[in-house]
Amino acid sequence: MAHLVIIGGSDAGISAAIRARELAPETDVTVLVADRFPNYSICGLPFYLSGEVPDWQTLAHRRISQLQSRGITLRLAHDATQIDPAAKSVTAITSGGRVRTFIYDVLIVATGAVSARPSIEGLDLPGVFFLRSMADGFALQQYLTTSEPKSAVIVGAGYIGMEMADALTRRGLSVTVLARSTVLKTVDPSLGRLVRDELARNRVKVVEGAAVIAIEKGRRGRLAVRSAEGRRIHADMVLVATGSDPESALAARAGASIGIQGAIRVSPAMETNLPDVYAAGDCVETWHRLLGKYVYMPLGTTAHKQGRVAGENAIGGHRDFPGSLGTQVVKIFDLVAARTGLLDREAFEAGFLPRTAGLQTWDHKAYYPGATPLLIRLTVDRSSRVLLGGQIVGHYSAEVSKRVDVIATAISNQTTVDDLVDLDLSYTPPTGSPWDPVQMCAQEWLGLVD
Amino acid sequence: MAHLVIIGGSDAGISAAIRARELAPETDVTVLVADRFPNYSICGLPFYLSGEVPDWQTLAHRRISQLQSRGITLRLAHDATQIDPAAKSVTAITSGGRVRTFIYDVLIVATGAVSARPSIEGLDLPGVFFLRSMADGFALQQYLTTSEPKSAVIVGAGYIGMEMADALTRRGLSVTVLARSTVLKTVDPSLGRLVRDELARNRVKVVEGAAVIAIEKGRRGRLAVRSAEGRRIHADMVLVATGSDPESALAARAGASIGIQGAIRVSPAMETNLPDVYAAGDCVETWHRLLGKYVYMPLGTTAHKQGRVAGENAIGGHRDFPGSLGTQVVKIFDLVAARTGLLDREAFEAGFLPRTAGLQTWDHKAYYPGATPLLIRLTVDRSSRVLLGGQIVGHYSAEVSKRVDVIATAISNQTTVDDLVDLDLSYTPPTGSPWDPVQMCAQEWLGLVD
Repeated sequence: MAHLVIIGGSDAGISAAIRARELAPETDVTVLVADRFPNYSICGLPFYLSGEVPDWQTLAHRRISQLQSRGITLRLAHDATQIDPAAKSVTAITSGGRVRTFIYDVLIVATGAVSARPSIEGLDLPGVFFLRSMADGFALQQYLTTSEPKSAVIVGAGYIGMEMADALTRRGLSVTVLARSTVLKTVDPSLGRLVRDELARNRVKVVEGAAVIAIEKGRRGRLAVRSAEGRRIHADMVLVATGSDPESALAARAGASIGIQGAIRVSPAMETNLPDVYAAGDCVETWHRLLGKYVYMPLGTTAHKQGRVAGENAIGGHRDFPGSLGTQVVKIFDLVAARTGLLDREAFEAGFLPRTAGLQTWDHKAYYPGATPLLIRLTVDRSSRVLLGGQIVGHYSAEVSKRVDVIATAISNQTTVDDLVDLDLSYTPPTGSPWDPVQMCAQEWLGLVD
Repeated sequence: MAHLVIIGGSDAGISAAIRARELAPETDVTVLVADRFPNYSICGLPFYLSGEVPDWQTLAHRRISQLQSRGITLRLAHDATQIDPAAKSVTAITSGGRVRTFIYDVLIVATGAVSARPSIEGLDLPGVFFLRSMADGFALQQYLTTSEPKSAVIVGAGYIGMEMADALTRRGLSVTVLARSTVLKTVDPSLGRLVRDELARNRVKVVEGAAVIAIEKGRRGRLAVRSAEGRRIHADMVLVATGSDPESALAARAGASIGIQGAIRVSPAMETNLPDVYAAGDCVETWHRLLGKYVYMPLGTTAHKQGRVAGENAIGGHRDFPGSLGTQVVKIFDLVAARTGLLDREAFEAGFLPRTAGLQTWDHKAYYPGATPLLIRLTVDRSSRVLLGGQIVGHYSAEVSKRVDVIATAISNQTTVDDLVDLDLSYTPPTGSPWDPVQMCAQEWLGLVD
């Protein structure tokens, strides 16, 4: 019986374990989990902290017993400290301080990522929080419950920053977001503006162009966030949400090649350079289908897919991870912002000849109750007419994310803007228009070019 | 200046007119409209009759002035009675009884469809209604307002029948639906059952397997609907919604070839067999991409696309209508039912080797508020593994229709079930799962086969 050891019990690690057992039920699969929370949806933490999800235990994609019933051996509170590729073993320290060694035939490294620590003074002060792990979530929840802060500064205006601005506002805090450049710069400024307006409508203060240099102790137990421009903003707590870094040190010490932004280098089959060692998820580089190169873009969807591929190959399969389009979506108060593929400038930098058309229209026929406006932008290569990217911002009820999924599906198939217009998409007045907004925007693009 | 005459002012006719003027603004475009309601969304009539759309005028896709400002000449209340292909002229009678002749260089026939008249006695009795045209809608609205009926029988359980069961219930009527076979048989029985349950939840009575043979005068001014099994159901009014027939007589008299179910035969460029005569919309045959043959399938989305192609070719363009996948969606009370491509038995009859997998899951992560169940079925060819069809039924909030659009986009691109799993679709807990339900169902299919 082959021994498959997996380091990491989050999306990639558990997906790999499940896939391996599914295809080769005779495999002995052991997952080393650093904490006690395997297979938790850490993407759900902001909704636990907002109070929308009352019970943190419901955040589990699957319960421990469900994983065990699939024949997966979980070793909880086992912190892997060393990989020995020659001996094919992994050493871990338990929470009780015991050192244990696990022998593998095949190893999958799925150690995930950690919160980025920007060069800001005072990150370790009490009242300063990060949000990445279940432990981070519990610490913040406990602070919110026991200290009852009235105000928060969020450093960073990306996905976690935006979700937590929503969550802490729901929780009754007065929230200020400090953005290094602009709010949600994963979408174009015209769409980012809608997000900024939604934040303002919900009384979140936003400061754009703020370069935070220090967090300091202020008066009456409060904190002060200081920016390079000399601004000082006082708050009871600070959340630092400036991105993630791959947790690749363990693999690197064992000799794994490291690539972009410190992430583990992998082949399309998710192999590292070490024999019989695969890696997947937020700790690895990800192939971008449109850029045609590796990037660091940690996303839950990608982690699941990479884990599934690694799990299949670990038991002798032959599958490649086809790559990411960077499809992403975030809900901020009543708004949903989603994107896939490349923005105009990203496409230009990658050597395409992009042109982007934008359109505001209704999510469904305006005469039917509940119609809300939708802002959509499509980026298309002018020479090949192939679709390169799409962005949509609209109301939570406006089926924004699945419309972006239509665009993602089209991009995956090298669809031209002409073929997008020809797609046979569904229509009834309560859900759409005879031409879906995505197709209207394609027609708008054609009108610019024809 | 070329003279383009278009017979018909609904989806196909107006789309053709707009496209012709867009590409060749020097073209003289005249649209003969039989009634006074060009470019109306007849798909919206059920929502006007339900009371959800208070003002029928908002059903117009565009106002008359908007069409005129695009340089389109509208001849309202002009009923075309004859096409003379040799003289290249169309004769029309105005509502005032005047006969007028229009000379064309190119003609587009977009005469639409009429309600099917099943072989049932008593279709012309007062209190019996059809729903296809604006006039039908006005007649029904007037009857509902002035006669205040308490009960209705709907003959037919397709899209219009279902929408009107919803509409008349909202309007306060007690509704009975008589289905020849089962409810909404455009989807598989397991999904149709959800629709039947939704009807029951809203106190709509459903009789399946009812072969209606006559509508008769009953007591106290009521009607009685008699079925072959000897059942008699009494109601104040009856709506007959058993489908549509193409309005092809005008073209046929001029020598146009007629094909399946009496629809006008067209080439991929939407040409008829008559020189310089195109046809589009509910009066023509439609190419089905998966069946590889012409079918009669009148849909608003298709009419728009065919009209656009006809308009482009009428002014010298070279575009083909790529065909339909039969993508359809309907909202029934709080439920949305959508499909694209082929059902299992349709695929089998067409010579595929289909296998269908089904799945019930949540529209988004169950821990986030508002999650609702989704029933999804995917049909895949076992030899090529190419996706052939998909059906989803779920709550109005569950982004059902756009998920079917993802499937439609995949089918258009001959996507395999394996590639469907690989798609980089969006995820945030309030809108989905790390694997979208469409992908989970694809994995379910793979589990059946692997």
